[in-house]
Amino acid sequence: LKPLTVGIGLIGCGTVGGGVVELLRDQAAEYTRRLGCRLELRKVLVRDTRKSRGLKLPRGLLTADPEAFFSDESIGVVVETAGGVKPVGDLVRRALESGRHVVTANKALLATRGNELFALARRRNVCIAFEASCGGGIPILGALKFGLGANRVDAIYGILNGTCNHILTQMSENGSPYAAALAEAQKLGYAEADPTLDVNGADAAAKLAIVASLAFGVNVKLADVRHRGIDQLHIDDIQFGKELGYTAKLLAIGQRLDDGLALGVEPCFVHHHEPLAQVRLSFNALSVFGHAVGHVMFLGRGAGRMPTASAVVSDILNVVGGWYPTAFETLRLWPDQQRPARLAHPDRVTGRYYLRVSAHDKPGVMAKLTRILGDHGISISAVLQHETAGDGGVPVVVTTHQARQGAVRAAAAKMARLPVVRGKPVCMRIIDLPSG
Amino acid sequence: LKPLTVGIGLIGCGTVGGGVVELLRDQAAEYTRRLGCRLELRKVLVRDTRKSRGLKLPRGLLTADPEAFFSDESIGVVVETAGGVKPVGDLVRRALESGRHVVTANKALLATRGNELFALARRRNVCIAFEASCGGGIPILGALKFGLGANRVDAIYGILNGTCNHILTQMSENGSPYAAALAEAQKLGYAEADPTLDVNGADAAAKLAIVASLAFGVNVKLADVRHRGIDQLHIDDIQFGKELGYTAKLLAIGQRLDDGLALGVEPCFVHHHEPLAQVRLSFNALSVFGHAVGHVMFLGRGAGRMPTASAVVSDILNVVGGWYPTAFETLRLWPDQQRPARLAHPDRVTGRYYLRVSAHDKPGVMAKLTRILGDHGISISAVLQHETAGDGGVPVVVTTHQARQGAVRAAAAKMARLPVVRGKPVCMRIIDLPSG
Repeated sequence: LKPLTVGIGLIGCGTVGGGVVELLRDQAAEYTRRLGCRLELRKVLVRDTRKSRGLKLPRGLLTADPEAFFSDESIGVVVETAGGVKPVGDLVRRALESGRHVVTANKALLATRGNELFALARRRNVCIAFEASCGGGIPILGALKFGLGANRVDAIYGILNGTCNHILTQMSENGSPYAAALAEAQKLGYAEADPTLDVNGADAAAKLAIVASLAFGVNVKLADVRHRGIDQLHIDDIQFGKELGYTAKLLAIGQRLDDGLALGVEPCFVHHHEPLAQVRLSFNALSVFGHAVGHVMFLGRGAGRMPTASAVVSDILNVVGGWYPTAFETLRLWPDQQRPARLAHPDRVTGRYYLRVSAHDKPGVMAKLTRILGDHGISISAVLQHETAGDGGVPVVVTTHQARQGAVRAAAAKMARLPVVRGKPVCMRIIDLPSG
Repeated sequence: LKPLTVGIGLIGCGTVGGGVVELLRDQAAEYTRRLGCRLELRKVLVRDTRKSRGLKLPRGLLTADPEAFFSDESIGVVVETAGGVKPVGDLVRRALESGRHVVTANKALLATRGNELFALARRRNVCIAFEASCGGGIPILGALKFGLGANRVDAIYGILNGTCNHILTQMSENGSPYAAALAEAQKLGYAEADPTLDVNGADAAAKLAIVASLAFGVNVKLADVRHRGIDQLHIDDIQFGKELGYTAKLLAIGQRLDDGLALGVEPCFVHHHEPLAQVRLSFNALSVFGHAVGHVMFLGRGAGRMPTASAVVSDILNVVGGWYPTAFETLRLWPDQQRPARLAHPDRVTGRYYLRVSAHDKPGVMAKLTRILGDHGISISAVLQHETAGDGGVPVVVTTHQARQGAVRAAAAKMARLPVVRGKPVCMRIIDLPSG
């Protein structure tokens, strides 16, 4: 028999938690109509109950006492929007142990304690829903689990960090240098005061670990994902890429290769015709290549109060409605049930590459560079060299045909040692998406 | 207790049905691993068992006899890929009546007999899964039902017919006239021998009826959706739109307005920066604007053997896994459970418009046109008039600011009666997507 009311307990009431409270309040009638039962917020566990949150919460709802929170027997679903691993991990553990379903937006928690928590949930016959942990409001995990289940996924390409995408869009469209574009993103509230984990690619890497686990049906650890950010990216490369028809994007990539998965986050060039190249500003997107469906792309807001709350509350509906718990029990797709990901050797990843060296304007430079590429079995696709004002440093850009990453890295290292070359060559992947 | 094997009965073994057979055969091990039970094709009901299908079907699987098909007690899920309403509707009815779940790709069947079949399924405690009926391989129905459940959907904009989108892309990018672009689409196998239902917008309208029912939680009938196709579209308008920064797309639009829903299919202009404008060739897409999530877009192959089979087989997995039947039972979102859609008066729909008249090259034409617009309370956003070779017919293009459709239609009718104007003015909506 279905209950008439399901009690919700909320851990954390910041930006996303506040959005969850608003949705549960403002859409209550519609949710009741859809589910045939009422969702009622029963307790909100916070660190400081006196902090102003701009929400009109009924008296007695807020508590800083975990005992008071967990002793409320009417709570059937615990929603965690506090973030971080400590002390939240232990609270989530306690929720599962006490037989409550858990909805969480916490990618850091899943990355560090996911296996333990998934296994515990299964033992206690409850579920963990985590759509909001990746891609904010875009229902990409649901699509991978349910919408594309018939497919063997061959590759995924994601724009999973809105801060980086905003910065890259400004650099590309307005010619803003990196520092100015970052400052603007911070002013607009997209970038944290300390944006390190965004701009160095670590945030996108944590999301890729979760998405790749579901897409490829393996257990991907955080350490399996190599990452490079946009913090070293020079405006010149974005402009040269543009001249060649490419848009720079920080891509989270997972590819199924012969010897295993290639997983990584790095700034790449994508042809400006590709849907992924058109994902602008703070939007996120995930392109999935399934062996049957071909190319499918999901686009939307990857962060922010209401988009993330949308994913959290949709998860609540899916849990309370009963179908998600059934899927959690039946579907053998959860990271803790999978074998560890076998990784491809990064040097063996093949692709096209963009190389820029800063060379002294002397005769024979191009011959030396092309010679090195030839020696490494790399053939050239295009060359770009502009006339310069003559301060002695000439940027020479070369794009390659398909080549092994290891060979390209070795060639770049050799170029760096040429006396006519100044500094380290810049090397970026050019992503030719499957025609899907 | 979960069964170790679930029998599948397939009705129809053409393009899509053949793809379903292939997936069930080639991915069998992986599906068994995911579900913990085997899917076994037990019977394939076709009109002619002797027809060559290029599939190595085991002896005895094919039958032309519905009695043999339905008497196989091991069949728990009936998959319908035959298409059409007769005799398929009665076969689907029989499947439901005999207690089988149904998976179908048949939008025509759902549009004409959906209410009856959904109600029957509910009475018999089985479900109907129909992801493949709209948007081919893109899991848009699942996203609306489960991924975005927390949202009040305010608007949807879909590119739901790949034939039209292929033709429009060729007209826009290569300057091909309509007839040539249609011939190419036919040569490539995207357009049927009789492409009428594709190019006149009827196919997109049937899909919009299904998508809008789920998005807005109402019962949308086929007759609720007005449609205009691309068959009257002139290459000149596509080129003028391009000059103004717009891309022509056949859009299926549903908008929640004050007095009801506005539902329609028509060729529109979209700013070339918008993700929808970048959906090229035979790809489909759906943009959803939810009150919490903002803009979410789903893109992929809207038709074709394997993309459609991907949606059908994903549905089979969701049905056999047990979560979709739970959702079908619990979620009150199915068309037969909803009140009929209340429709907004089409004249009250506001938007921006593109108008082109062919005028005799005489002084005062522009004054007359702008006067008519002013008289109807319509203000002008941009004007485009090129110098001409002087055969007497000058195209004059005007784009408007926000205006009521009724006013724009009335103004266009008045322009048509001006002696200096030749033929009927061309009138197209310009879609300014919410900033979402």
